[in-house]
Amino acid sequence: MTDLFAEARELDARDPLAEHLDAFVDAPGVSAYLDGNSLGRPLRELPDRLAAFVAGDWGTRLIRSWDEQWMDLPTALGDRIGALCLGAAPGQTVVADSTTVLLYKLIRAAVDARPDRSEIVVEEGNFPTDRFIAEGVATERGLTLRWVSPDPVAGVQVTDIEASVSDRTALVVLSHVDYRSGALADMSAITDAVHDAGALMLWDLCHSAGVIPTELDTCEVDLAVGCTYKYLNGGPGSPAFAYVAARHHGVLRQPVQGWMGAGDVFAMGSAYTPGAGIRQFISGTPPVLGMLAMQGMLDLIEQAGIVAVREKSKTLTDLVVRAFDLELAPLGVRLLSPREATDRGGHVTIGHPDFAEVTRTLWADGVIPDFRYPDGIRLGLSPLSTSHAEALRGVFAVRDALA
Amino acid sequence: MTDLFAEARELDARDPLAEHLDAFVDAPGVSAYLDGNSLGRPLRELPDRLAAFVAGDWGTRLIRSWDEQWMDLPTALGDRIGALCLGAAPGQTVVADSTTVLLYKLIRAAVDARPDRSEIVVEEGNFPTDRFIAEGVATERGLTLRWVSPDPVAGVQVTDIEASVSDRTALVVLSHVDYRSGALADMSAITDAVHDAGALMLWDLCHSAGVIPTELDTCEVDLAVGCTYKYLNGGPGSPAFAYVAARHHGVLRQPVQGWMGAGDVFAMGSAYTPGAGIRQFISGTPPVLGMLAMQGMLDLIEQAGIVAVREKSKTLTDLVVRAFDLELAPLGVRLLSPREATDRGGHVTIGHPDFAEVTRTLWADGVIPDFRYPDGIRLGLSPLSTSHAEALRGVFAVRDALA
Repeated sequence: MTDLFAEARELDARDPLAEHLDAFVDAPGVSAYLDGNSLGRPLRELPDRLAAFVAGDWGTRLIRSWDEQWMDLPTALGDRIGALCLGAAPGQTVVADSTTVLLYKLIRAAVDARPDRSEIVVEEGNFPTDRFIAEGVATERGLTLRWVSPDPVAGVQVTDIEASVSDRTALVVLSHVDYRSGALADMSAITDAVHDAGALMLWDLCHSAGVIPTELDTCEVDLAVGCTYKYLNGGPGSPAFAYVAARHHGVLRQPVQGWMGAGDVFAMGSAYTPGAGIRQFISGTPPVLGMLAMQGMLDLIEQAGIVAVREKSKTLTDLVVRAFDLELAPLGVRLLSPREATDRGGHVTIGHPDFAEVTRTLWADGVIPDFRYPDGIRLGLSPLSTSHAEALRGVFAVRDALA
Repeated sequence: MTDLFAEARELDARDPLAEHLDAFVDAPGVSAYLDGNSLGRPLRELPDRLAAFVAGDWGTRLIRSWDEQWMDLPTALGDRIGALCLGAAPGQTVVADSTTVLLYKLIRAAVDARPDRSEIVVEEGNFPTDRFIAEGVATERGLTLRWVSPDPVAGVQVTDIEASVSDRTALVVLSHVDYRSGALADMSAITDAVHDAGALMLWDLCHSAGVIPTELDTCEVDLAVGCTYKYLNGGPGSPAFAYVAARHHGVLRQPVQGWMGAGDVFAMGSAYTPGAGIRQFISGTPPVLGMLAMQGMLDLIEQAGIVAVREKSKTLTDLVVRAFDLELAPLGVRLLSPREATDRGGHVTIGHPDFAEVTRTLWADGVIPDFRYPDGIRLGLSPLSTSHAEALRGVFAVRDALA
């Protein structure tokens, strides 16, 4: 135990991102926040940013702010996320709606563009909203779901996909980082395999964006969606982002055709014509207030660099896995995440039959991991706001609560 | 001119809601804000509310706030809007998504529930997003749009609807207050006529909610959607609300079936089952940050009473119409709104070929109405934040800019 804490202190002392830990709002009574993969913490600068917004952009510029800046905010912010986190050239990423609504729009757009194909390939362990939306679209469009059932710890492999795609496949929907195990999928190889079958590839980046850099353009990904309230710290329910590769603009067509995605928003024309580029994937009025918090986090990621963020996520999760081996495995806790840092994202999942009760105890004591039905605890380690010592406190708190 | 200003001062002196004018954030350099029907002004209390939220609910309670309050926020806030503004009993109103996305979900739910019917009745002057969404749904479901073309100033009448509905009609989609003319439709009579034809009725309440009380339950309305950033001052792009009458719960089914509308959100079950009651119309994670600002405005409406708000909207628009007659009609400006206060909502629209240029001049001078293509100016009068003197300054500024 002592050795691990000494090691954690040493890692924190050498951490090039340690200076940023103080950028986040204090949480009195919380000794370890290990749920940055569900809800990232707010930045200290946020209340001032919000107050300035209320007094200025909204309160004084009033409706004029739409012309002055807000109309372009969804694409400006999308481009910034694309550049800093996704490996996406400008003009392909937009912030809008919820992840769920964007999944619906993009899955519909994809399968409607492949009318000669009859299947959507989905993973049985994918996040419920991804499965539910795919299920709903399949039902309404008369398609079949083909389920992939990978090893739940190792996550989906390219061989799983090669065995599932065919000339019947319209679209493959997968998460880049598994929301349970944290397993990291091989985006490049899997996207290639999907393309070899002539299908389109949609990646869910909810547990990647802001912690694992991706190379959407280089991997020739077709479509992606992701969340901004996890590692991008946009606040509860902040809007999601969608990536649509430029080659699909004007070809794929999304079904929720609203005024803000139309060719000339204020012409009030009599028939809908899709707007240019990525704008056509917008539907309603952009949720401006919900786009403010993430801007501070993007500033921070820009300073820190996403590669350094990823490196710290490896040292954090490595430390947690070593602590698991020493302190939790002897108590019968199972490791439900890959052992190698390069095979996993920003969280580590462990399992034990008592974890529902353990989580209640921990939450009341100010140690806050995430419980996942039926018996998992996710230790989510957001590199910019989490120290190695804090991560370790979390593991020891689990041990103590179990004992 | 002098008489009108004296009258405005007198109306302001007698205004029972005048005390609330000071509740809104100052807008330095803005002498008349006449666009509360597009974007309501923020409340002075908002920065403190936001700061407390960042420090407390989000920053300290962190993920625990989902269990403690956020999961219920969409329906709690919906019930509050329903009670204060809509005449809706609890359990039928929910805050979620954008107006556009909600229109898509409810229009799809309605027409999918009437598979034996082939038409959607829409009004050719309705707001573009309503028309675009209806157009898109009609195309994807193989339905026909039947267009109603009412008088553009008087707005849609019950006779227009009686002449358009039949046993082919699945759904009628109309705005309660016309976004251009401000004409107020007869919700009760029109809903009855639609029901007589066996069709469903969806009302767009974007320009009603917070300024004109409605009686959705009494009128037996089936479906409604509305905006919270106009007269409910929720901030740019704040989420919309949907009303679905209780008798349709579990019968109508919306297509964007996401985890937050599922039966047991955290069971992570293998197939989608709709949640109970109005929750099934939620799709993704609720936009919590976007739901904060409107709460202060709902407090204010509760204090003031929606009936008093509506009364003030009549004296404001009456004054503007009288000033129009004296000052603008002689300059060739046309009145594009109904003359009687009981026939219109919270805004007055006027027309002149030079209004695009006039609007640019006014905006630069701190008088802020709303320009509507091709030659309309809307004077939007949000009763809680607008004095009679301010409304009048707006009309005189239009006169001076034209001269």
